[in-house]
Amino acid sequence: MSVTSRLPEFLEKCERERDRAVDFWLQHSHDTEHGGFYVCLDRDGKVYDDTKYCWLQGRQVWMYCRLYNEVEKYHRQDVLQAAIAGGEFLMKHVKDPDTMKCSFAVTRDGRTVKVQRQPFSEVFYFLGLSELHRATGEAKYRDEALRMMDQLVHWMTVDDSGLGRPKWPGAPATDSMAVPMMLMCMIDQLETMDPTLADKYAELAKWCVQRLLLHIQRDGTVILEQVSPDGQELPGSQGRLQNPGHAIECSWFLLQYAVKHNRPDLKKTAINNFLLQPFESGWDNKHGGLFYFLDVDGFSPTQLEWNMKLWWPHNEALIAFLVAYKETKDEKMLEKFAQVFDYAFSHFVDPDHGEWYGYLSQQGEVTQRFKGGPFKGCFHVPRCLYMCTQILRELLTA
Amino acid sequence: MSVTSRLPEFLEKCERERDRAVDFWLQHSHDTEHGGFYVCLDRDGKVYDDTKYCWLQGRQVWMYCRLYNEVEKYHRQDVLQAAIAGGEFLMKHVKDPDTMKCSFAVTRDGRTVKVQRQPFSEVFYFLGLSELHRATGEAKYRDEALRMMDQLVHWMTVDDSGLGRPKWPGAPATDSMAVPMMLMCMIDQLETMDPTLADKYAELAKWCVQRLLLHIQRDGTVILEQVSPDGQELPGSQGRLQNPGHAIECSWFLLQYAVKHNRPDLKKTAINNFLLQPFESGWDNKHGGLFYFLDVDGFSPTQLEWNMKLWWPHNEALIAFLVAYKETKDEKMLEKFAQVFDYAFSHFVDPDHGEWYGYLSQQGEVTQRFKGGPFKGCFHVPRCLYMCTQILRELLTA
Repeated sequence: MSVTSRLPEFLEKCERERDRAVDFWLQHSHDTEHGGFYVCLDRDGKVYDDTKYCWLQGRQVWMYCRLYNEVEKYHRQDVLQAAIAGGEFLMKHVKDPDTMKCSFAVTRDGRTVKVQRQPFSEVFYFLGLSELHRATGEAKYRDEALRMMDQLVHWMTVDDSGLGRPKWPGAPATDSMAVPMMLMCMIDQLETMDPTLADKYAELAKWCVQRLLLHIQRDGTVILEQVSPDGQELPGSQGRLQNPGHAIECSWFLLQYAVKHNRPDLKKTAINNFLLQPFESGWDNKHGGLFYFLDVDGFSPTQLEWNMKLWWPHNEALIAFLVAYKETKDEKMLEKFAQVFDYAFSHFVDPDHGEWYGYLSQQGEVTQRFKGGPFKGCFHVPRCLYMCTQILRELLTA
Repeated sequence: MSVTSRLPEFLEKCERERDRAVDFWLQHSHDTEHGGFYVCLDRDGKVYDDTKYCWLQGRQVWMYCRLYNEVEKYHRQDVLQAAIAGGEFLMKHVKDPDTMKCSFAVTRDGRTVKVQRQPFSEVFYFLGLSELHRATGEAKYRDEALRMMDQLVHWMTVDDSGLGRPKWPGAPATDSMAVPMMLMCMIDQLETMDPTLADKYAELAKWCVQRLLLHIQRDGTVILEQVSPDGQELPGSQGRLQNPGHAIECSWFLLQYAVKHNRPDLKKTAINNFLLQPFESGWDNKHGGLFYFLDVDGFSPTQLEWNMKLWWPHNEALIAFLVAYKETKDEKMLEKFAQVFDYAFSHFVDPDHGEWYGYLSQQGEVTQRFKGGPFKGCFHVPRCLYMCTQILRELLTA
């Protein structure tokens, strides 16, 4: 029987899990006194640490607003008000107005605990406020988002000295896949917020695609996480590192871009090099699930968690295979979707409480029982399931 | 049958594994061109990355010199010459002469790759050069060690602004157990290098003991890794963190101090609070071995590797129980030693190549096949087995 017969099941389960996840955050994460969100939530929603990790503050504002804007069920005042309280918290407490740097973590009442010398809190600050503008129409959120976009483009493409990262003589210049991937995501967000901005960022988007393609290495057989700025492999463990989930996440950004700009060559590259190859090499044939890190020459990665199964690569793979199926109608893509779906829904789902577990051992046992932590918030699970629900509904009504 | 009947077996196996470990490093880690040591060595000794991690450069100089100074078998020119080449590499490439900061990692030829805003590379720089003075009698190594000792005492007890760590308004002041523990270790090293220095550091050693005792929390039932400077429990996950291996490592520093200074009260505290309690709560009754991290209230630690079994806590436990047995003649201590010994020798030992594996899953499977990496070098395994061999020989000839 063709895997297409499972489309209704996929839709029903994705929508149900989407709602269980969103309800979990709506119920347990709101700080009604200070605004913003608790993110360190135990299995049942209990707050085990009230530190506010700021990647997750921006992401949750984005997620709530996207749901408010796109899903009728969540076009509600409680969702909007929590998003606004989150956006205000971000502007008031997370960003340093002088340097534009955002904290990585703040106390419950907004005092800085830690600042990273990477521009990631700022990316999610931008995403949150941009989508908040879409939800509210308020000019101040748009202005703030555009200011941060300019700043991020400057840091990422012109001069990163404002991030405070020291440059050591023995550290090779590196191009991390994260930078062009995030920029692509941000440009896509800007165009969603205001389609008239597409032209302004068209060249930058092309540049991002070029940077991402540099990560295809070894005659097209692998995606490496970091390469030299001129696209050469870097020496040592750093150079050999693969992060299959990251490559797969790139694949759907690239695929959407290729479809939008009618680039069949890039569509093929997105699917073959960034999706299928990393998926096949990253899948654990013994226990199922995607490894977190691999060394392309088969040495042990130095990251202790390399063999763990994290939730988010599976979220990215679900999105990527479903977008690939939608754009190609190749049933092989839907079969891979089903493979990831079956693993994810039988391992990450908690039957008792909403939102997925985030961290499993190689064997598939839950190693961290919490639903939210310093790097896991209201983002990957609801984003994936909201997107899959939308695409599956389109496929079924086509 | 009493566990004391196993003493000859323990000695024979510890000595054999000590020699297999030392031979591994002698054979595979020397950079005969630039000096210093390769540390990223695969299972069979192959270099998989030639980055020189500097904690491990200083530690290997210390280990080689200690073996040269204390073990007749290693009182050899090849051991000494490699140690000298390592010490010269440290002085020439690892330390910034202006700031006294040491790199965390350098390239093979000594260019800085990374500097930590913690004073740990500097601690091992001091240990290496101090023991190198003992081995060579050269004044320059002694002078350099004493200069670094003064600098470390300044950073650790007077003013740490030279480390470059930013102070954020929401980050609580914390006392990490690592600081007094390392200082105690350094004072012990200084006294070994030059017993006339004991008086100079007597007050500082007392201060270290006081700081360590602040980590006994919750009516003496737990050791917490970080507390406030006035000995209160910190909020959130950070405050609840336990690192059983660290507490156990402290126990033998404290125990040796208590014996040396005739402090029976402290001897009891070292054994009961820093050794037995962390060992019992840190031991995995299902699969054996010591957990890496625990949350004292039973939440999941946010560290992804919390449930892994690392080599070094087992090395510390072997030393601690054997010292405790030697100092108390309580057979219970030797029974615990046997428990750790049986786990360690059946899980970490590689029958084909020397030096132990470093990283196991909770179930006890090897997850990282390498023998050396960014945080594992020629230190914990040979130090433990050299110390245990010495103590066991004393016990058997007593």
